[in-house]
Amino acid sequence: MHLEVYGHGGDLVTASARYGVAADEIADFSANINPLGPPPGLLKVLQDALPEIVHYPDPGHRRLVSLLAERLQVEENAIVIGNGAAENMALALLAFRPERVGIVEPCFSEYRSLSQQLGAKVSSVFGTEERNFKASPDDVERLIQDSDLVFIGQPNNPNGVQYRLDELRRFAEAGERSGTYVVLDEAFIDFIPEEARQTLLPELSAYTHLVLVRSMTKFYAIPGLRLGYAVAHPDTAAAMRDKQVTWSVNMLALLAGEVCLNTGKEYEAQTIALIERQREFMRRELQRLGCQTWPGEANFLLVRLPEPWSAASMQAALGRRGVLVRSCAMYPGLGNRDIRLAVKGEAACVKLLRAWEQVLEEGAVK
Amino acid sequence: MHLEVYGHGGDLVTASARYGVAADEIADFSANINPLGPPPGLLKVLQDALPEIVHYPDPGHRRLVSLLAERLQVEENAIVIGNGAAENMALALLAFRPERVGIVEPCFSEYRSLSQQLGAKVSSVFGTEERNFKASPDDVERLIQDSDLVFIGQPNNPNGVQYRLDELRRFAEAGERSGTYVVLDEAFIDFIPEEARQTLLPELSAYTHLVLVRSMTKFYAIPGLRLGYAVAHPDTAAAMRDKQVTWSVNMLALLAGEVCLNTGKEYEAQTIALIERQREFMRRELQRLGCQTWPGEANFLLVRLPEPWSAASMQAALGRRGVLVRSCAMYPGLGNRDIRLAVKGEAACVKLLRAWEQVLEEGAVK
Repeated sequence: MHLEVYGHGGDLVTASARYGVAADEIADFSANINPLGPPPGLLKVLQDALPEIVHYPDPGHRRLVSLLAERLQVEENAIVIGNGAAENMALALLAFRPERVGIVEPCFSEYRSLSQQLGAKVSSVFGTEERNFKASPDDVERLIQDSDLVFIGQPNNPNGVQYRLDELRRFAEAGERSGTYVVLDEAFIDFIPEEARQTLLPELSAYTHLVLVRSMTKFYAIPGLRLGYAVAHPDTAAAMRDKQVTWSVNMLALLAGEVCLNTGKEYEAQTIALIERQREFMRRELQRLGCQTWPGEANFLLVRLPEPWSAASMQAALGRRGVLVRSCAMYPGLGNRDIRLAVKGEAACVKLLRAWEQVLEEGAVK
Repeated sequence: MHLEVYGHGGDLVTASARYGVAADEIADFSANINPLGPPPGLLKVLQDALPEIVHYPDPGHRRLVSLLAERLQVEENAIVIGNGAAENMALALLAFRPERVGIVEPCFSEYRSLSQQLGAKVSSVFGTEERNFKASPDDVERLIQDSDLVFIGQPNNPNGVQYRLDELRRFAEAGERSGTYVVLDEAFIDFIPEEARQTLLPELSAYTHLVLVRSMTKFYAIPGLRLGYAVAHPDTAAAMRDKQVTWSVNMLALLAGEVCLNTGKEYEAQTIALIERQREFMRRELQRLGCQTWPGEANFLLVRLPEPWSAASMQAALGRRGVLVRSCAMYPGLGNRDIRLAVKGEAACVKLLRAWEQVLEEGAVK
C-alpha cells in the first residue's frame, strides 16, 4: 500500500508507524515547507497570544485582509482568506459550481479529488517530458474552452515549472471568452525570486473569471495552522466568501498571517536564496547519482530514478533510514520511478544524499 | 445597524470599535464559552507544541478519533472531526444535498444561512413561549416529513431547552421513515449534568439518518482554535468525511482536543456545577429587575426586557459600560426586547447586574 494513504506527503504519523522511526527524527522531504522554519519571533507572538483562544476568531479577518491588500496592492474586497489554499479551491468549486473541471496533469492531487468530492466531472490534458511537464498552450486553451473551471499550478506541483506571462494571459483571455473560471494555484510562487515570478496579480482587475490562490503555510512554514488566500475580481471574491463557513480560519492562523506579513524582507530574501542554492546543489548531486531531473523553479524537485529502481522501493529504503520522500507513482502523467523531493537546508540534504547513496550501493531492494 | 454584523455574538473587534472599550476589558456575555477557561495545563501543552506547527496536521485525526471513540463508546468510523461544529453542519449539507431544509425557530442562525449558502430552501416551524420556545412534537414531525434534512438544537440556542428522549426518538423514527436526515445540534449538551442530558448517542446505531453534532470549543473554552465533531452511523459519517477538505482541522486544535478529553472529571464537574449555580442566580436577579426568563438548562439564558426597553438600546448602553450582550431581535420567533446572556463566573455576573441596574435607573435611552 502507498505510504501516501491520504494522498499527500508530510504524513509523519503513517511514516513513523511504518518505518519504526520516531516522528521527530524523520528528515521530511515529502512536504514542501520552508527549511528556515517560521519567521523569527513568530512562535513567541503565538505563545503570548495563546490565552486569547478563549475568544472567537474575527469572522471578517479584518486585520489580515487589510495588511494583504496593502502588500498585494489590491482592494480589500478582492481578497478571500481561507483555511489553507485547499479551502480556497473548495470555495471556488462551491461558488462557481462547475460541471466540468479541467486539470493539467501531472498536478496537485486535490484539484481532481476536491472537484470530484463536490460533484464535478474531471478531464485532463497532459504535460510532456520535453516541455518539463508543462502542457502545450494550445492544449490548455482547448481545455479551458471545454471546461467550466480549470486548475493550473503556477509553478506547478510536482515539477516546479511556471507558465510564461504571455501564456497566462492567453489562458485568462480564453477563460473570459468562454465563461470558464481559471484558477491559478500560486501556492509556491513566493519561493521564486520576485523578478522571475510569472503572475497575473497586477492585471487581475481586467478579468472576472480569474482566481489566484496562494498559501501562507509553505513559505512561512506554518502548515499545522492552516492559512491561505485567494485574490480575484471583487465580485468573484465575494461569491467565494459567500460559501465560506463562519470562523473557518482559526485565530492563531490569522495572527500568524499578520506577523508573517510584517516580517520584513530579510527572511524572504534568505529563504529564496537558500532554496535556489540548495535546489541546484541537490540537482547536480542527484544527476551524478544517475537520476534525471527537470528545471523547476520552486522549492521542490521532480526526480526520476535510474532503472531498475522504483519510487516505492526507494521510498521504503530511505524511510527505514529516517528520510521521508514523496513517491510520484500515483500521479497520472508520471511513472513508478518518479519521486518529488522538497528542497531543504544543508544538513538535511547531506543526510538525504548519504542515505540515497547507501541505498543505491547496497542495491538490495529494487 | 446590528452589532452582530456577522450574525453572531463574540465579535470583540466590532464591539471594541463601536463602544470605544479595549477588547480585553470587555465582559463578553455574547459568546457562550465556559467561564472557567480552558482545562488546566492545556495552554502549557499548546505552548510546548508550537514548534510542531511546521508539520501538517494528521489528515486522519487518528489520535483524537481514537480517544473520542473510547469516551463516547462508539466505533471510530462513526466519528467525523470538524473545524468547529459549523464545519460538521456544512459537511452534512454537502453530503446529503437536501433541497428542503427544516429548522425549528428561534434557533442558531447558521442552520438557515449555511443551508441557503449551499443552495437549499429553508422552511421552519416555531417554538412557542408557553412551551419555552420548543415546538410541538407534532409540528416537528410534520417538518421532518416535509424536508430532506432538519436541524434541531438540543439543547436549543438561544432558549437552552431540551427535547425529551421520547420526543427525540419520535423525530429520529420519523426521519428513518421519510428518508430525512435529522441533525441534532448538541453543541451545548456537555454543560448539562449527565443524568439530565437527553441524547440519542447510545441508540445511534439504530438510525442511518441521524447525525449528532457536538462542539469542543464551548465547553473547553477554545473557540479561537475551532474544533467539533459529528457522530452518526458509520455509512452516514463516511459520507460526511468524504466531503471534507484535507487538513481542515488544524494541528493545535487536534492536540487541544486530545488534552481536553484526558482532562479528568473534576474540571467537567466544576464547570457543570458553576453553570447551574450562576445561571439560577442570574435568573433570580434578572427577574427581580423586571425581566422575563425561561427555564433553560444550558450555559446561557434567554431574557425578555421589561417594556419599554429594547434589546438594541440595552445592548448599546451596556456596551458603553464594557459589557457585551447578544441581541436576539433578529431571531425569527423572538422580539426586539429579547437578549441572550452567557452564564459566566461570579465577578463577571456582578459586573453585568450592576451595569444593568444602572442602565435601568438612568433610563436615558430606551
